[in-house]
Amino acid sequence: MSKTPVTEIGEFGLIDRLTQKIKHYHEETLKGVGDDTAVIASGEDKVRLLTKDLLMEGVHFDLMYTPLKHLGYKAITVNLSDIYAMNGRATHVIIGLAVSSKYTIEALEEIYEGMLLACEKYKVDMVGGDTTSSKSGLCISVTAMGDLQKEKVTYRSGAQSGDLICVSGDLGAAYAGLLILEREKEVFKANPDMQPDITSYNYVLERQLKPEPRRDIVELLESLQITPTAMIDISDGLASEVMHIAKSSAKGAVIYEEKIPVDMQTAAVAHEFKIDPTTFALNGGEDYELLFTIRQSDYEKMKDVDSVRIIGHITENPAQTDMVSTSGNIVALRAQGWDSFK
Amino acid sequence: MSKTPVTEIGEFGLIDRLTQKIKHYHEETLKGVGDDTAVIASGEDKVRLLTKDLLMEGVHFDLMYTPLKHLGYKAITVNLSDIYAMNGRATHVIIGLAVSSKYTIEALEEIYEGMLLACEKYKVDMVGGDTTSSKSGLCISVTAMGDLQKEKVTYRSGAQSGDLICVSGDLGAAYAGLLILEREKEVFKANPDMQPDITSYNYVLERQLKPEPRRDIVELLESLQITPTAMIDISDGLASEVMHIAKSSAKGAVIYEEKIPVDMQTAAVAHEFKIDPTTFALNGGEDYELLFTIRQSDYEKMKDVDSVRIIGHITENPAQTDMVSTSGNIVALRAQGWDSFK
Repeated sequence: MSKTPVTEIGEFGLIDRLTQKIKHYHEETLKGVGDDTAVIASGEDKVRLLTKDLLMEGVHFDLMYTPLKHLGYKAITVNLSDIYAMNGRATHVIIGLAVSSKYTIEALEEIYEGMLLACEKYKVDMVGGDTTSSKSGLCISVTAMGDLQKEKVTYRSGAQSGDLICVSGDLGAAYAGLLILEREKEVFKANPDMQPDITSYNYVLERQLKPEPRRDIVELLESLQITPTAMIDISDGLASEVMHIAKSSAKGAVIYEEKIPVDMQTAAVAHEFKIDPTTFALNGGEDYELLFTIRQSDYEKMKDVDSVRIIGHITENPAQTDMVSTSGNIVALRAQGWDSFK
Repeated sequence: MSKTPVTEIGEFGLIDRLTQKIKHYHEETLKGVGDDTAVIASGEDKVRLLTKDLLMEGVHFDLMYTPLKHLGYKAITVNLSDIYAMNGRATHVIIGLAVSSKYTIEALEEIYEGMLLACEKYKVDMVGGDTTSSKSGLCISVTAMGDLQKEKVTYRSGAQSGDLICVSGDLGAAYAGLLILEREKEVFKANPDMQPDITSYNYVLERQLKPEPRRDIVELLESLQITPTAMIDISDGLASEVMHIAKSSAKGAVIYEEKIPVDMQTAAVAHEFKIDPTTFALNGGEDYELLFTIRQSDYEKMKDVDSVRIIGHITENPAQTDMVSTSGNIVALRAQGWDSFK
């Protein structure tokens, strides 16, 4: 038997290869693998949405700078983000928690406190799960369920040529926060007596440690009576997600660098680290903002919305996923977002 | 802050403590924590069932003797078992897989092959999930979903005084298989050239490595037009599960040792290891048989069913969960089933 390391094909390649033999036996399964959530018909006119994320210690979080309560909160909210990315309503979560013997009951209670805080804020019912031990480290598995009217489900694949590309909030902040945390960790390791002064980074730290999924955008779309043509949440960076929508829709996309929303504090961190802030936005990931496309006829409704920026449009040519830079150059987007296997 | 090791209260104590602050916000949530699955109303007369299990390398499986394909198969079937234990139909699974860099793509394909084989056999749709890396070891998280007519949902809590206690198949075999595998592992470690002869243990090995959940019993109950009053799957051993049903129903229970079904091969392994086979059945766990209670009025329908044994009855006194031994002694049951934290 040949032995191919996973690093050779990366996370997306691996998922493609593992899932290609999947067969479905139920008519009600409208979407399996390949979008933010699975979509399962429920009665005449509704669907259930189902999604799962694993958070592994040492891969997805570093307990040296991640408060356990924040970790629990984030474990819930990153899953809710997937439900909202389908234009859905999140209703339930079910938890798997594996911990090594070094964790105390009090530590686990802190994780749960964070999880239940997120459940309260987003009005989601925690309906059980599995708690068990692990040989080493902490593993949190969250499955989220949601529901939605069938005609409002927003897949990645529905973008049409000429649609406007929109993004909520601002981008790159979570990555900026991660860089600060990693830097302070090194400072602390070198000199444990040093008290880091991180108050001037509050915004980007919070974006990294305690992301809020954009339920408000789903509600906004509803109140504006807009059903997006395609939607995805930004977990791996803007470039990767634009390419997902384009590829799934068999269309191209053009975005404009000058339109990409970046917070002042994110820009300041980028400057400190001598990195282009656009790079943070394109490849940083973990922003949990929503990227979506709307018909041009919805432009008037959307153009003055504070929390949403129109950053580009969908094109007919599937070979084209470009960014027009601030200086006017056309740059092909590349998915350089985070890959846990690289 | 006090620091209490998890071992001090064990798995059930921990779950009680972590889940006591859970609040529900949705009327449709009929059951959260505390049964084999969560139960969520779906439309007028149906429910959705949701359950999750984590399998951790070194805790739940040992790759020295667990073929990866079997591991994938078992990861699915132990979750389906929880759906069947609610009298439900399993429809969907969603997978989380975290692997360290030592795993090759081919190894992961073997795990998926086993998972998809189970999906095919039980007609369950795999609808996605998350594949990521881990710092060490393999972690498989499976969430299973099912559905059911609302009036047929069978909780642990519905047993009534006088109901008959039934069990499917035979018990203790999975634990017998585990003992053989552990013994052969030690033999192999001492002398790697030794080829173990384990053909005479085929049945118990298969029960350990490749458990089949009892969908057939759910179908049988349907064809006999019996809705059990309570049901649970036997994952932690018969004693623990009888006590779960009794406690949830606020009743007592008496079972008869001589009625407990134990396979000849299980008994032979017990004899080899100089352990009472009844101990295997009571405390061995991982049998994934169904334990359920039926009304006395259903006795005639059930008494000649080959795959089900009536092993006792429910009593009025919640303080009593006893076994009448073959020699006629009355022994209080004790939950000594497997606890991953002990």
